[in-house]
Amino acid sequence: MAETRRFIAAAQAQAPLFAGIDLGGTSIKIGVVDDLGRPLSWLSIPTEIEKGAEDASGRMGAGVHRAIREAGLAPNAVSWVGLGSPGEMDIPSGMILTPVNLTGWIDFPIRDRVSHHCGMPVAFENDANAAAYGEFWVGSGRDFQSMALFTLGTGIGCGIIIGDVVVQGAHSHGGESGHIVIDVSECARPCNCGHNGHLEAYASATGVIRRTQEALNNGRATSLSKRIAAGAELTPKLLADEAETGDELSLEIVLETARYMGIGAVNMIQIIEPDAVLLGGAMTFGGREAALGRRFLDRVKEEVRRHVRPALAEKTVIDFASLGGDAGYIGAAGVARLAYRIKRSA
Amino acid sequence: MAETRRFIAAAQAQAPLFAGIDLGGTSIKIGVVDDLGRPLSWLSIPTEIEKGAEDASGRMGAGVHRAIREAGLAPNAVSWVGLGSPGEMDIPSGMILTPVNLTGWIDFPIRDRVSHHCGMPVAFENDANAAAYGEFWVGSGRDFQSMALFTLGTGIGCGIIIGDVVVQGAHSHGGESGHIVIDVSECARPCNCGHNGHLEAYASATGVIRRTQEALNNGRATSLSKRIAAGAELTPKLLADEAETGDELSLEIVLETARYMGIGAVNMIQIIEPDAVLLGGAMTFGGREAALGRRFLDRVKEEVRRHVRPALAEKTVIDFASLGGDAGYIGAAGVARLAYRIKRSA
Repeated sequence: MAETRRFIAAAQAQAPLFAGIDLGGTSIKIGVVDDLGRPLSWLSIPTEIEKGAEDASGRMGAGVHRAIREAGLAPNAVSWVGLGSPGEMDIPSGMILTPVNLTGWIDFPIRDRVSHHCGMPVAFENDANAAAYGEFWVGSGRDFQSMALFTLGTGIGCGIIIGDVVVQGAHSHGGESGHIVIDVSECARPCNCGHNGHLEAYASATGVIRRTQEALNNGRATSLSKRIAAGAELTPKLLADEAETGDELSLEIVLETARYMGIGAVNMIQIIEPDAVLLGGAMTFGGREAALGRRFLDRVKEEVRRHVRPALAEKTVIDFASLGGDAGYIGAAGVARLAYRIKRSA
Repeated sequence: MAETRRFIAAAQAQAPLFAGIDLGGTSIKIGVVDDLGRPLSWLSIPTEIEKGAEDASGRMGAGVHRAIREAGLAPNAVSWVGLGSPGEMDIPSGMILTPVNLTGWIDFPIRDRVSHHCGMPVAFENDANAAAYGEFWVGSGRDFQSMALFTLGTGIGCGIIIGDVVVQGAHSHGGESGHIVIDVSECARPCNCGHNGHLEAYASATGVIRRTQEALNNGRATSLSKRIAAGAELTPKLLADEAETGDELSLEIVLETARYMGIGAVNMIQIIEPDAVLLGGAMTFGGREAALGRRFLDRVKEEVRRHVRPALAEKTVIDFASLGGDAGYIGAAGVARLAYRIKRSA
């Protein structure tokens, strides 16, 4: 699914250069990217949440300088740093507030602390928005004026770009589209967030596993049972494997998931009508490289055609993202580049 | 609901001045508005669709000049004209394509033809977007950086403004939020557009009447039966009257409608997170001036609190629009003002 990024040498890089930080609950990816969005170096360090936000900020600063060295660059070769972080946050003030995935990092001025440790200005962004900007800049979204990226994993993240502007929302909550309501009926499924009927309850890995478990509990015949009895864990990957070897239930659940993601795409199109809706993250069933992934995408498109007027359904591109796990740091670097250009032109 | 616009005299007007045209299936409203969004004059002419688009364009041109005269202005006092039209359209090229509400006006260059008949440059916009821009400029949205306006009537229209930018969509279909899917279940209601589960099938006047009719067919006791037997037509207005005089079913349906509109607001908030979501149009049950309207709004807010994280639900303003039927031509004039300012600064 993720195309392998080709790293370029320092001598080929187009100045100015930017560093991007993709802060996650488990690990932090840091890379140096040139003005054309091409990575020069890349590294990953553990987040070690328990050491606290200030400690991690120090290690992010050191990581940026290590990435600069590993790219074969002089210490002052990078102009700006971009930082993508999970929410809840206040983007304009550079604060993380009460982020669910960074336990204990409460009301922390992360942008300015990372800037202090880097010795460089830092542009701050929501991680889903940063990933979307990466795809918009140099990934599957590069030919479009506007796009939305859904990131399918344990939850469903979302970032929206309209004409080089990241839709951050009035209070830094733009693009929380995993929590749009797609089922108002009595039988709506409960979401991780405690409410009912949200897209994430249907189309995230959590939703997929829950729906599969229900089918197993109902005694549906499936090759999954044998795999699970042999010790395999019920995951979207297991489901994909079994679907590919002909298991009917597994395929049914994958395509049902595509139907729900199609509804997510429909609602995005009816509200902002972007040029493209992209699907990325860990749960894309092999993406465009896999027969199952292509079937998944076709089913998403079918659902869009079912609800959106024909002329529009035809024009809107529905595709997989292409940067894989690199979208976050490349996008963060892109956000830094945006901030740098705005400052330069001011 | 609609606050009465106070018209100002030509001598009080702040230049430059703009004319706005709100083209509808039945009538065309034309007004002259000053640089602060205050109307100087206002008139309405029948659309007379059957006479064709070119005929109407001529009458719109004449109407603009009549509105200028009626405002007591010199013929050259107005700088630009704005035109809001129902879809389907191509905004950048100023074309209406196959508008559902303007039968036979197919592939017509309406912007340039109206411009020809006015003798002035014309800025072109979707009617729902124009109304939203009116509210954003001088209505209930005037204190916000971003907002969405849902217009509740036979269908549900929608316009979105983010930071003085009208979200037109990649192919002029932005803000078709009446057709977001809110019910993926088996029992989803059919929408006017032919598909199932769309917001409009639940929360538009059409949806309200259909839901009421079902309850009547099921033999629910209600004072509506007596009114209908006496010749009254089943409309949202009749429902509001009966709800206000204590009819349980009527109130139930009004509040259920509010719940569905709340889901529309939730999905708007989770996708773009505007400062405010406004409700306008003919079916707001008396708006903020009426006890029923206020109850309707409270129920919408309750549904938002049910699905959106608390800090965000508290910050997002949910309110009625305030310009009533004037939003369209005032907003069209505002769109003309935007275009005028962009040209001037270029």
